Amino acid sequence: MQIDFEEAAALLQGAQKILILTHHNPDGDTLGSGFALLQGLLAMGKQARLYNGQPLPARYAVAYCPQPEGPFEPELVVAVDVASASLLGALEAQWGGRVDLCVDHHRSNTGYARCTLLRPQAAAAAEVVLALLRQMGCAITPHIASALYLGLTTDTGCFRFSNTTAQTHRTAAELIEAGAQYQQINEQVFESKSRRQVLAETMAVNTIAYFYNGRCAVMKLDRALYEKTGVADDELEGIASLPRQIEGVEIGITLKEKPGGSCRVSVRTTGAVDASALCARFGGGGHARAAGCTLEGGIDGAARRLVEVAGEFLGEGTGGL
Amino acid sequence: MQIDFEEAAALLQGAQKILILTHHNPDGDTLGSGFALLQGLLAMGKQARLYNGQPLPARYAVAYCPQPEGPFEPELVVAVDVASASLLGALEAQWGGRVDLCVDHHRSNTGYARCTLLRPQAAAAAEVVLALLRQMGCAITPHIASALYLGLTTDTGCFRFSNTTAQTHRTAAELIEAGAQYQQINEQVFESKSRRQVLAETMAVNTIAYFYNGRCAVMKLDRALYEKTGVADDELEGIASLPRQIEGVEIGITLKEKPGGSCRVSVRTTGAVDASALCARFGGGGHARAAGCTLEGGIDGAARRLVEVAGEFLGEGTGGL
Repeated sequence: MQIDFEEAAALLQGAQKILILTHHNPDGDTLGSGFALLQGLLAMGKQARLYNGQPLPARYAVAYCPQPEGPFEPELVVAVDVASASLLGALEAQWGGRVDLCVDHHRSNTGYARCTLLRPQAAAAAEVVLALLRQMGCAITPHIASALYLGLTTDTGCFRFSNTTAQTHRTAAELIEAGAQYQQINEQVFESKSRRQVLAETMAVNTIAYFYNGRCAVMKLDRALYEKTGVADDELEGIASLPRQIEGVEIGITLKEKPGGSCRVSVRTTGAVDASALCARFGGGGHARAAGCTLEGGIDGAARRLVEVAGEFLGEGTGGL
Repeated sequence: MQIDFEEAAALLQGAQKILILTHHNPDGDTLGSGFALLQGLLAMGKQARLYNGQPLPARYAVAYCPQPEGPFEPELVVAVDVASASLLGALEAQWGGRVDLCVDHHRSNTGYARCTLLRPQAAAAAEVVLALLRQMGCAITPHIASALYLGLTTDTGCFRFSNTTAQTHRTAAELIEAGAQYQQINEQVFESKSRRQVLAETMAVNTIAYFYNGRCAVMKLDRALYEKTGVADDELEGIASLPRQIEGVEIGITLKEKPGGSCRVSVRTTGAVDASALCARFGGGGHARAAGCTLEGGIDGAARRLVEVAGEFLGEGTGGL
């Protein structure tokens, strides 16, 4: 059931013990939005926790706040920036069927939660959470502002992606005035690379292959690259935008090989190609110009299958292979 | 003489034939601001021209508008985003001593013009020009908004650099609402690379050398790189930010060797190091964290001299050499 801000605020205000869930492979928006909500609820005197099934990346630490240890039995379960139950990852088995409220901005949201507050025009879930905190009369502290700014800037590529609107900029201005550590955040997220990251990026760029007269570009980060450079996966988050940036490329595909042999795939598109639809063919999803999916069976085979489907989306058949 | 918006507007309104000068090695801000002002003046019924001593980069074409050919004898000469007469380049000999009004945001502005409208807190000259156009009652058309957005986004690295403020975001929101083609501009400027550009960047990254325990990083783009890749100089504008992005680097130096053997140098700093002061040692200037200068005498010698001075600024002497 779709609900509005007033109804979502009432749900949260009516509960005392609230669990916040964030999506797996956590990014700046799910964590920034989740921790902002956590801090807001704690300030309102609630008991609240934030769960993520994976270790939290150090680069988003500006958003984090300490949580008490020990068991926690929530009255209300809230998922933030989680478009489907399967995106809960390791948390899905226990909580996937128990989400009372989902606060999200993904058009592809499956409606898996009992109640959904969805604002697909928002560039980031952080914009929705800010409005929700305001609805509850929650003060936007500098720490909350930083967490929300983190979500805003990461989901828009620092106001560069096509989801950015005038409203996104107004939200950024408000968060900066509320004390968001925006310079530190942008430096940490966008302007800071380890030497091994620079090396890994150079190696990755050298793998770029072109298909369909340069309309599709594929970059492969195999296990050898990770092992040779020692780079951590979350250090290479931004790299997925690179293949699509090359002139003439309409579909940019980045494959990251995982230790077990499966591949995490990022698809970025320009113009008319729907990245979300392309990834849906492999059980994934996301936005119109940025989406993801996971493929099994080795990086080369995965790349081949993706290029085939990319050819269909480009109306090229598989002639370019 | 420093003047305010009202006085600057009166100067422009009092003249009929106005020449706008932009700085050499033109960037998005000088051209965006200059063409926005040009369009505003033309819409007010003025005769106006914009000069730049060099070919205009294709990537900023969104700001451009046609100009009549033929001789032009201005009553008023305005320089936009030009911090010193020497930055006029080829235009300096004829116009350097004849600038009536300089509209700028560089703290390092030398005051070479008869009247200067300086707003050092502005992230881009485009912010100052927007306020000036408003002061004159000029309508902000979509084309003018695009030109000003170009200046704003290029001078802030798309709202990423430390000069970005809440006001910068509010200006961006206004320009987007006025019809700025912001998605197209950001794609063109930040999200679009030729294949030769990708190749050149990879080669450039491989030249990075570290000094003073990694506190200084130097990247060299020599003639061989340009010749091997066929890359154009303006395709490599953003690359100068890369060395400073590497973890632990406080001074990032990028040298681009010119056909005659001189080097165009970009210095990016973090924390306490004043890039503008460092470049001033070589006759250059700019902002506290991003500045430039030109050195003669071969790229390797130029790099050595820069590293020496960088050592001084880091309090390292030249022990790292």
